Amino acid sequence: ARRALGDALVSKISKKCLAVGRNYVEHAKEMGHEVPSVSQEPFFFMKPTTCYLREGRPILLPIGSEPEHEVELGLVIARRCKRVPRDAAFSFIAGYLVCIDVTARRWQREAKAKGLPWTLAKSADSFLPMSRFIRREEVHDPQRLWLWLKVNGQLRQRGCTVDMVHDIASLVHYASRWMTLEEGDIILTGTPAGVGPLLHGDIVEAGIEELVSMKFVCETDTGSPI
Amino acid sequence: ARRALGDALVSKISKKCLAVGRNYVEHAKEMGHEVPSVSQEPFFFMKPTTCYLREGRPILLPIGSEPEHEVELGLVIARRCKRVPRDAAFSFIAGYLVCIDVTARRWQREAKAKGLPWTLAKSADSFLPMSRFIRREEVHDPQRLWLWLKVNGQLRQRGCTVDMVHDIASLVHYASRWMTLEEGDIILTGTPAGVGPLLHGDIVEAGIEELVSMKFVCETDTGSPI
Ligand SMILES: [Mg+2]
Ligand SMILES: [Mg+2]
Ligand SMILES: [Mg+2]
Repeated sequence: ARRALGDALVSKISKKCLAVGRNYVEHAKEMGHEVPSVSQEPFFFMKPTTCYLREGRPILLPIGSEPEHEVELGLVIARRCKRVPRDAAFSFIAGYLVCIDVTARRWQREAKAKGLPWTLAKSADSFLPMSRFIRREEVHDPQRLWLWLKVNGQLRQRGCTVDMVHDIASLVHYASRWMTLEEGDIILTGTPAGVGPLLHGDIVEAGIEELVSMKFVCETDTGSPI
Repeated sequence: ARRALGDALVSKISKKCLAVGRNYVEHAKEMGHEVPSVSQEPFFFMKPTTCYLREGRPILLPIGSEPEHEVELGLVIARRCKRVPRDAAFSFIAGYLVCIDVTARRWQREAKAKGLPWTLAKSADSFLPMSRFIRREEVHDPQRLWLWLKVNGQLRQRGCTVDMVHDIASLVHYASRWMTLEEGDIILTGTPAGVGPLLHGDIVEAGIEELVSMKFVCETDTGSPI
């Protein structure tokens, strides 16, 4: 019952998803960026709730956009908060999800080159596949979870949340510094190394070892009127 | 009564605000950008609902962020839609608002220079002051509205919606191309020329001639815990 409540929190109440960029050193390197450090503030972008996707529906790949997978731990906010001190952060977390921050790499590359917002690259419908809600009490140590992602049975990403540059408590702290967080809001905590393309017909599985897994099919979206 | 329903649509139901960048030629010029043209697709960024602000509460100015005003016409979406053809766009608009797209110019400049998302620069609490809801039927021609903004009684911005690069119907069309729009979502349509700084103690008034006006006080926000 509490699990169902957690799922409803995300499906019905959530109003925003804030996602951190470059929060694992090995991923920053593979993208050709400077190595991020804990002394720099993290940066966030937003994904709209209309990109939330549950199992049973396909990941839609906009044609020509070079969509890629980024497996991430998602935090679900329990109640309204602002300027949360690090040592209070976990009292504002209701639970967790495993998520895929689908990213249209070509659109993101073009936006970066022009200094434009990342919105289009991050926000298409179905660009946030997510697992069932995991209650906070189900997780012994959220900073020691192994995330993994496979495409067509092949392991593409595997990384441990201990390797985050900014840890979970710090992300809640920074995300709430200028913006109020609300019940059901999601914070994506960044992806470990191994991001790669998604193609029409691909079967994507992702999970957190010993906790949860999920599976999605990918389909090209030509963008013609629906 | 229908006006109150429209206000509730925005305050309680809205889940996202999509805002177009550089949609008036004179504003693009004052920012030092290429002159935008109707042959290029518009780009959008997001503002979270937690930055929506109604009269009676202050605009909070994060210290050191160089906040500026951008008066804009806001569209309120009437119902769920995707890939809206231009000639059907107005049937998905419930009404209008006058809005100020408050922008932390320093944070935006830093983000642009690094190719990073604009989220922080656009999303602090109180960064979207808005008027009462204006029903679609109250507006004779939404493409001939005069927007204005004053700071401490001095006119800073005045421009006509006829000068949009991408008109209202095109913005609904493009915004809904890859993202589903939902009831209560807001589309900001860009700002005319004359953007400028907001300082502690400033009184900001903005409106649409012959339709609506609103007034806000500005206060520095030091970012200390609340
Ligand atoms: Mg990511
Ligand atoms: Mg953005
Ligand atoms: Mg603007």
